[in-house]
Amino acid sequence: MSSYELRIDSRRFKAAFDRMAEIGATLGGGVTRLALGDEDKSARDQLAAWLREAEASVVVDEMGNIFGRRGGRDEAAAPVMIGSHLDSQTRGGRFDGTLGVMAGLEVLRTLADADVVTARPLMLAAWTAEEGARFTPSKLGSGVWSGQLRADWVRGLRDERGASLGEELRRIGYAGDAPCVAWPVRAYLELHIEQGPILDSAGAVIGIPRGVVCLHVYHVYVDGTANQAGPTPMEGRNDALVTAAEMVLATCELPAKARGGLVATVGRLEVRPNASNVIADEVHFTVDIRSWDEDLAVRAWDDLAGSFSAITGAHGCGLRIDPPWRVGRTEFDDDLVAVVRRVAADLGHAPMSLVSGSGHDSVYLARVAPTAMIFVPSIGGRSHAEVEDTDWAHCEAGAEVLLQSVLAVAHGPAT
Amino acid sequence: MSSYELRIDSRRFKAAFDRMAEIGATLGGGVTRLALGDEDKSARDQLAAWLREAEASVVVDEMGNIFGRRGGRDEAAAPVMIGSHLDSQTRGGRFDGTLGVMAGLEVLRTLADADVVTARPLMLAAWTAEEGARFTPSKLGSGVWSGQLRADWVRGLRDERGASLGEELRRIGYAGDAPCVAWPVRAYLELHIEQGPILDSAGAVIGIPRGVVCLHVYHVYVDGTANQAGPTPMEGRNDALVTAAEMVLATCELPAKARGGLVATVGRLEVRPNASNVIADEVHFTVDIRSWDEDLAVRAWDDLAGSFSAITGAHGCGLRIDPPWRVGRTEFDDDLVAVVRRVAADLGHAPMSLVSGSGHDSVYLARVAPTAMIFVPSIGGRSHAEVEDTDWAHCEAGAEVLLQSVLAVAHGPAT
Repeated sequence: MSSYELRIDSRRFKAAFDRMAEIGATLGGGVTRLALGDEDKSARDQLAAWLREAEASVVVDEMGNIFGRRGGRDEAAAPVMIGSHLDSQTRGGRFDGTLGVMAGLEVLRTLADADVVTARPLMLAAWTAEEGARFTPSKLGSGVWSGQLRADWVRGLRDERGASLGEELRRIGYAGDAPCVAWPVRAYLELHIEQGPILDSAGAVIGIPRGVVCLHVYHVYVDGTANQAGPTPMEGRNDALVTAAEMVLATCELPAKARGGLVATVGRLEVRPNASNVIADEVHFTVDIRSWDEDLAVRAWDDLAGSFSAITGAHGCGLRIDPPWRVGRTEFDDDLVAVVRRVAADLGHAPMSLVSGSGHDSVYLARVAPTAMIFVPSIGGRSHAEVEDTDWAHCEAGAEVLLQSVLAVAHGPAT
Repeated sequence: MSSYELRIDSRRFKAAFDRMAEIGATLGGGVTRLALGDEDKSARDQLAAWLREAEASVVVDEMGNIFGRRGGRDEAAAPVMIGSHLDSQTRGGRFDGTLGVMAGLEVLRTLADADVVTARPLMLAAWTAEEGARFTPSKLGSGVWSGQLRADWVRGLRDERGASLGEELRRIGYAGDAPCVAWPVRAYLELHIEQGPILDSAGAVIGIPRGVVCLHVYHVYVDGTANQAGPTPMEGRNDALVTAAEMVLATCELPAKARGGLVATVGRLEVRPNASNVIADEVHFTVDIRSWDEDLAVRAWDDLAGSFSAITGAHGCGLRIDPPWRVGRTEFDDDLVAVVRRVAADLGHAPMSLVSGSGHDSVYLARVAPTAMIFVPSIGGRSHAEVEDTDWAHCEAGAEVLLQSVLAVAHGPAT
């Protein structure tokens, strides 16, 4: 049969997705399924059971990454891997990560039902602790697997109650035997919600990112002079919060000043001593700059840092900036992106090219395997919140593009 | 003898002040002597011992207020009361409160040495928990004594570790037997550091406040939309922190817009979820407005609240403001202020008239007795910090003005 005749079972896909959304469901319609918590264990157990029913063998590695394997005609060939994650933010959405895992499961189920054996083996990966919500940083399972993070360091990370990731892996029974190291993978494909408003605004169903923007984070400290609010005249104050407020606005104006091509955000800001009747003597805040154009991001920061010096100087405040934390952009594999684009077009979608503004396990996978992603719209661009939502027809469309992309790569000669 | 021939013993005054500054001394040259902590108990024990040596009888009331009484020729006459407090901020200064108590002690010692018996009895009061640093709100001892706060409510206040004020009073042995109620007082006098830069800037030694400015506090909440910093374009964001930053600047510009006569401060600001990669969806901040002109303060707030509506509207954010917390201004007693002014002038100082920007026990005392204060300069206007400092010559000058002001009122006919 021609692969395009194969279709996923939409009802089964939806039923499994809805069942997964019950695990850690919140009253507000989202999920709280923090990495390696009891809800994550339940989700993992459910996934493993479904994988076995779908004739996949299940392997858990030492970092708790779960792999479901469906054999190919050439068992020695590098497999095609589908992946994403099951953990969520606190009061996060039902789609983030989970959609990609459940679509991968549906692909394996569809092939099992139709008795289709691909040339290459297929793997479904559910990566451990992608969100960075309970254990920081994010993308821990795929980070170790791809050789970008050290397993011992990740096991030693602790949540805010002091529990280590390693202890929690053992507690829920997901410290597996398989070593957590990358093996040859022919192609890695991840379906994910966009988590931004671009597809939704454009009325597009399928987005195909060229890659993930760079991420530059700066920690900025403003030093003022603490004084009592009452007896201190406005003239001559060194108010660290007023100074920081001007810097927040300068950051917000930066993208327009650079004529687009980047976003800049102050999401975190802390005031000391933070008392209503005391002029602030220290403000710490972060600047998050993202762009597909790394040089632009650096030039924009240099410009902003100059503004920061001028603003703090005008207020008689001190300025200190930690060394930058910079993650370069990730470029997905041109050939694999072209395959996904052709499949989406063949299926009647006009795929929209974009770049991803947020990180995914695909960022690490792209270091060790040809990688591409498929985006479906986030209604209103909302994500990491209970209101996160995607039309189910769009989820289906994304799963169809995933299925046909997998077949396009996995049917091919097993080299 | 003419009262102006009487002088304090500057060496003894300084030695006692320095001894008190050792109790709870910090490495940075300040003190941490939180209300009803072990250091406060040591300071109280020391004061009580000194009072007894100075021929004063010591009474402790049920709120831990300490009164040292020196008899007068007419024991039935309403006494002249001197007062301030011994508790401090965390890493506060040596002068705030303590200077007034130690100057009062020196007044009693000077009279005892010279065998001067005034017509009216004299009282020195060391009020409990003025700072509001350990137990909030501030001025608790004088608040109960003056009938403005309920004793049971104050006893039930808890510090951040959960200890109640009543328990702590008993623990350190300062839950006294005397009822905490105001009795007739002819005049209340409090020497205090200015805690602002006005005297220091003007080169004045003695300041005489007409009263204490009003204090209006507003809690403001800005609601935005949480979204991931990366995938969310700048256009269409409802960024609660950018919005709040504009409001902070509008607050800072308010006094200039009103052409002076008030100060306005945002000292406290909190961001949610406060993550570097998430656009803020809620910011809570306070606006502290103080003025001698209460109508001006209200008109300025109305103007600012209008700006807040416009700013939040322009950013598509929500705005919520709690009911205001407003404390009216305190006017000191004209006649008593005139006495202090004359004494200061007679002693060769050019007393500077001003208003106090911060609250003191005198605010509560003014409700039940004719009240006046004497200010001495704070170097650089710094207070509530270890760097708080005042030239010792200015402390002496303040104590001399206090002594002669007390004598001017207490020598007079005992009516």
